[in-house]
Amino acid sequence: MRQITAEDLEYLAVGAAILGTGGGGDPFIGKLMAQQAIAEEGPVTLLDPHEIADDAFILPAAMMGAPTVMIEKIPEGREIVRALRAEERRLGRKADIITPIECGGLNSQIPFILAARTHLPVLDGDGMGRAFPELQMITFHIHGLSSSPAVLADERGSLITLETPDDFELEWQARGITIRMGGQAHIISTPLSGADYKRAAVFGTVSMGIKIGQAVLSAHSRGMHPVEAICEATQQTASGRAIVLFKGKVSDVERRTRAGFAMGRATIQGLGEYRESQLSIEFQNENLVAMRDGEVLASVPDLICLLDSEVGTAITTERLRYGQRVVAIGIPCAEIMRSEAALAVWGPKVFGYDIPFIPLEQRFKDYYRKYGVAGDKEKYLTA
Amino acid sequence: MRQITAEDLEYLAVGAAILGTGGGGDPFIGKLMAQQAIAEEGPVTLLDPHEIADDAFILPAAMMGAPTVMIEKIPEGREIVRALRAEERRLGRKADIITPIECGGLNSQIPFILAARTHLPVLDGDGMGRAFPELQMITFHIHGLSSSPAVLADERGSLITLETPDDFELEWQARGITIRMGGQAHIISTPLSGADYKRAAVFGTVSMGIKIGQAVLSAHSRGMHPVEAICEATQQTASGRAIVLFKGKVSDVERRTRAGFAMGRATIQGLGEYRESQLSIEFQNENLVAMRDGEVLASVPDLICLLDSEVGTAITTERLRYGQRVVAIGIPCAEIMRSEAALAVWGPKVFGYDIPFIPLEQRFKDYYRKYGVAGDKEKYLTA
Repeated sequence: MRQITAEDLEYLAVGAAILGTGGGGDPFIGKLMAQQAIAEEGPVTLLDPHEIADDAFILPAAMMGAPTVMIEKIPEGREIVRALRAEERRLGRKADIITPIECGGLNSQIPFILAARTHLPVLDGDGMGRAFPELQMITFHIHGLSSSPAVLADERGSLITLETPDDFELEWQARGITIRMGGQAHIISTPLSGADYKRAAVFGTVSMGIKIGQAVLSAHSRGMHPVEAICEATQQTASGRAIVLFKGKVSDVERRTRAGFAMGRATIQGLGEYRESQLSIEFQNENLVAMRDGEVLASVPDLICLLDSEVGTAITTERLRYGQRVVAIGIPCAEIMRSEAALAVWGPKVFGYDIPFIPLEQRFKDYYRKYGVAGDKEKYLTA
Repeated sequence: MRQITAEDLEYLAVGAAILGTGGGGDPFIGKLMAQQAIAEEGPVTLLDPHEIADDAFILPAAMMGAPTVMIEKIPEGREIVRALRAEERRLGRKADIITPIECGGLNSQIPFILAARTHLPVLDGDGMGRAFPELQMITFHIHGLSSSPAVLADERGSLITLETPDDFELEWQARGITIRMGGQAHIISTPLSGADYKRAAVFGTVSMGIKIGQAVLSAHSRGMHPVEAICEATQQTASGRAIVLFKGKVSDVERRTRAGFAMGRATIQGLGEYRESQLSIEFQNENLVAMRDGEVLASVPDLICLLDSEVGTAITTERLRYGQRVVAIGIPCAEIMRSEAALAVWGPKVFGYDIPFIPLEQRFKDYYRKYGVAGDKEKYLTA
């Protein structure tokens, strides 16, 4: 248990933007809203998932929509509280604890807005270990826990409660509603018990975000390059040590907002030791596959992040533009996100790429032998 | 109060198809479902709105979507019961009475499916006095009564509850959800008290549908042409005496399903005394404007119906095709549907036609002087 302050949210915003893997929305506006909520209501308690009761009643909070919309359309501020109250009313029970459902990007902050306003604690974990574009792409779904009932709220006061036979139908309907809400919505979904959470969540992802953000922001004062600091900081998390995949200059960005998603491809012309090469990154809200001269370097669900090559902060899909100097890094995802059942929900094939998922540690054995095994993934080096 | 039997539903299907003014969906499948429900559960009580208590709790039942979809996609049968139960759960109160919200077309039957299955009575009235394409096009909305909360249900078990700040937003979201439900949905909306209903409903529209259907089906045995029988039968209803506008052959139909609606135009080449003329009818699910050689003969909210010229049954928009011999009739709508507030919701301008609404009785004074004033609309003849 620890108290989350406005300063922690500053770090979290930087770290979560990296965990957003290009998507998840820029955390900036969410951070300001959460900091204001904490300034008005006091700090928020962050709970270790191990310490919660099995019968605790947990509600996940998030926004959904296209990140391209979120940077232009500012929330009203109480949407997520209205959504929580409607979900509690539907279920006849008050929430005990809030959890992020997506630790990457903007959705790292939304639970803290809600928690500050309702004086509830937040869990140090989530259902994605990163950002993903669709609602059913969560470990809770993979563990058979339903996202229904879910409540969507908008800034004009609409509340829409969804109960569907499966989570794919929930995503389908919620996406349509979000589009008609103007491209973004606040959502409470997937009511969970403490026991469910301990079985199905990715642990430690809020504190991972804070840790990564601290590493980036303190790197220069410690005489390190921020990217080096990220590699070091990620080593002891539920994910694993980051690896530099590429360095270069953004030479082309194709981007379109379609069916409520930001879709496209970025091309990066190599610089320095990479100058003879091109990296191409395909994204659907999040970066999905990184290819160097046609060869796959990393793929979903491992994290692919584009960082500003000077300051080490994330560049989200919607802010990518020609001429930016970037470093592409990969971060091995948490082990719970690599099971066969998990890959059936968010492996490369789900997004239309006919490639197998090969973990970063297996693609880059020399690097991980040198720096130590990422997270708890010993097996990938001995295989 | 009277009991509605399977035979009454046979008449109602014929009459309601005419009141559907080309839209509202073909009542055939709904009729079979309602007749089966009555066969299994017993007849349904039809209540006169005058006799209900002011504090009665009334829930309207309907389907929404494009009629073009409804003739191909058969409901599962319990959707409307699930929607009712979800609405009752949301409001914490059991319904006392069911009402149609749209007496025209398929939606004349849906309340009887629900009423038979739940052993509740049905009110002899509705919120449209005909069929209209959008949810907010109801007298309840015009009288300031909210459609929220509304529940949409589909055949796969999804239940979506909408609470919106206004009825236009409800229509907007419900339409999108209906499209994603496959083009049709069952809906419970606009919870009403008995006092609300007495103030805001169009009265007598179920029995009007039955009366028109009886007139059509018994016409030949009484030595009358069915269209003549319709004119006679409508004279003593809340609407008013029908008038023949045109007779001819369908020479062209443009039809497209767009944004969840069946839109288009039918052209009818005159026969007999009309042979030098063309009638064109524009529709959006329902027939909106009838023009003879460019001159407006009738417009929404008055009813414009295309009937089979032999048997007098309605031809709905989605079944219109080249070569059909048709009679176009107009029926003056109920007076409550012609107020300034009502015309702001469903007058010709709402559908994009820059024409004033002129009541049929005013357009055809000679006819109405000869046959008597339609409904209670004396003023249109003396003006």
